[in-house]
Amino acid sequence: MHAITIPEPGGPEALVWDEVPDPVPGEGEVLVEVAASAVNRADILQRQGFYDPPPGASRYPGLECSGRIAALGPGVSGWAVGDEVCALLSGGGYAEKVAVPAGQLLPVPEGVGLRAAAALPEVVCTVWSNVFMIAHLRPGETLLVHGGSSGIGTMAIQLAKAVGAKVAVTAGTKEKLEYCGELGAEILVNYREQDFVEEVKAATDGAGADVILDNMGAKYLDRNIQTLAVNGRLAVIGMQGGIKGELNLAALLNKRAAVTAASLRARPLEEKAAIVAAVREHVWPLLSGGHVRPVVDRELPMSDAAAAHRVVEESSHIGKVLLITP
Amino acid sequence: MHAITIPEPGGPEALVWDEVPDPVPGEGEVLVEVAASAVNRADILQRQGFYDPPPGASRYPGLECSGRIAALGPGVSGWAVGDEVCALLSGGGYAEKVAVPAGQLLPVPEGVGLRAAAALPEVVCTVWSNVFMIAHLRPGETLLVHGGSSGIGTMAIQLAKAVGAKVAVTAGTKEKLEYCGELGAEILVNYREQDFVEEVKAATDGAGADVILDNMGAKYLDRNIQTLAVNGRLAVIGMQGGIKGELNLAALLNKRAAVTAASLRARPLEEKAAIVAAVREHVWPLLSGGHVRPVVDRELPMSDAAAAHRVVEESSHIGKVLLITP
Repeated sequence: MHAITIPEPGGPEALVWDEVPDPVPGEGEVLVEVAASAVNRADILQRQGFYDPPPGASRYPGLECSGRIAALGPGVSGWAVGDEVCALLSGGGYAEKVAVPAGQLLPVPEGVGLRAAAALPEVVCTVWSNVFMIAHLRPGETLLVHGGSSGIGTMAIQLAKAVGAKVAVTAGTKEKLEYCGELGAEILVNYREQDFVEEVKAATDGAGADVILDNMGAKYLDRNIQTLAVNGRLAVIGMQGGIKGELNLAALLNKRAAVTAASLRARPLEEKAAIVAAVREHVWPLLSGGHVRPVVDRELPMSDAAAAHRVVEESSHIGKVLLITP
Repeated sequence: MHAITIPEPGGPEALVWDEVPDPVPGEGEVLVEVAASAVNRADILQRQGFYDPPPGASRYPGLECSGRIAALGPGVSGWAVGDEVCALLSGGGYAEKVAVPAGQLLPVPEGVGLRAAAALPEVVCTVWSNVFMIAHLRPGETLLVHGGSSGIGTMAIQLAKAVGAKVAVTAGTKEKLEYCGELGAEILVNYREQDFVEEVKAATDGAGADVILDNMGAKYLDRNIQTLAVNGRLAVIGMQGGIKGELNLAALLNKRAAVTAASLRARPLEEKAAIVAAVREHVWPLLSGGHVRPVVDRELPMSDAAAAHRVVEESSHIGKVLLITP
């Protein structure tokens, strides 16, 4: 098969579409013939040499895919060759075939195209595990999503609205904010021109955000704490603004607030399977019902993954950038 | 009645035993004739002028007491004049009488003396709310308690052991550590001579602590994060080592860990009542059964609260320092 390899870490040109051995599904795994994968920020870090795959994971990038089951490994039940699926991966999505633990498979939701389904696993599992399983966003609460127009952001807006929460977002352009508004976000903050602490407080009668989903890390840490409501929860899922920030514990204590940080990739199989099962129970009906949908910015050939990385690094996209196999 | 007043913030001598008007129990409150109160670090901060009582709270210090109900305010049921009780207060415990919301009353547990019961409300409610309700310590997990010989520490050790957790403590003397060991702590770290990160990791096969109960704040923040296990929870309840510390979000994310901070005093009535109800359900049977007991360092006359504050500020005590009314 072909896969995107990274002979030497570097810029987008480091991604090389090369011929490699087919993966073999192990115990409890299935082999998926990949229709599409999608770009995540973690892939860019991996390409740059800053984020090695965890032990046992494929060396090729790609944390999610969609496609058809081509073979079942030993001990797999509940799935059949030919099933249309999408999957959460610990790597290897940028390839024509990938071996996946069966616990990380999801059926392609009714009404969602096979390729578009590749936009779902990572964002849905990230949002559901952080915003709902860890931070317990409840109806009537306010969620602040940084980077509201990203793949994660567009899914977070929709899921929060679906459970009856109020949504605030930050983004860097009027066009991105308008799109977030169309998805249901009510508080729209242009971080280039406005202070999100002030804007979110003003729009919530001074109360602040009950949950914040943050991809900026250190750069926003103090302002995120300022923005939290009493009993608020800050869920950090990215550190695009640095990893070490000053934490004001007195402010945290006065609000009885919490700071959490988590990623999916390093979780053990059973935790991933539990998240995938929760997503299938709670989010899949929303997708099949048309209440929530994947947001795809564009589709590019997987062999030109470099072009897709350039798009994501420029941050002019809205939603997910897909990589389509030949 | 008499109460400890603070005419001017300052050292222990700022505490003045003075004649003041009796409190009047409002709607939903009872009047307690105080037998004993106990010293908390927050009282010292209040005496120094750094911790004003929240709006509506008594101006006198004292976050807990024991005694007998002297009168019922309007709308109180389930309690009778003469009942022996202890109570969580938002202030006013350093007095001969105090008005208390009925939701913050607890009966004196079977087998516990009336005065010793004053050592319970603040520590039991703090430990239960932070270690169990917020951080969800589970059987088989490891709890690290900083200041293991304090009132909070001695209760945290006992409650964690009672639910089947393993307990690590830090303390500053051999005598204090031995006492913690007698209460059930298995990992004893002298913070003057040993590095708690190394010691806790070595004693847990490198895994670290699942929950940390911390009173040091900024000074220990980074080392606490280093000590946390995967899925670990750091519960900050004091900031004796400063309020602003550097938080390594990458370390937090790699462990899928959480930092929380909370105090009891500023919580709204309904949250306090919920904590008191949970404590009565889960901890009171342990006290009545003799599995857990209040640890009292000494009893001093309330009129000489200054002497009690000096003891706590010197930190040579083990457990709680009680203040006894005349």
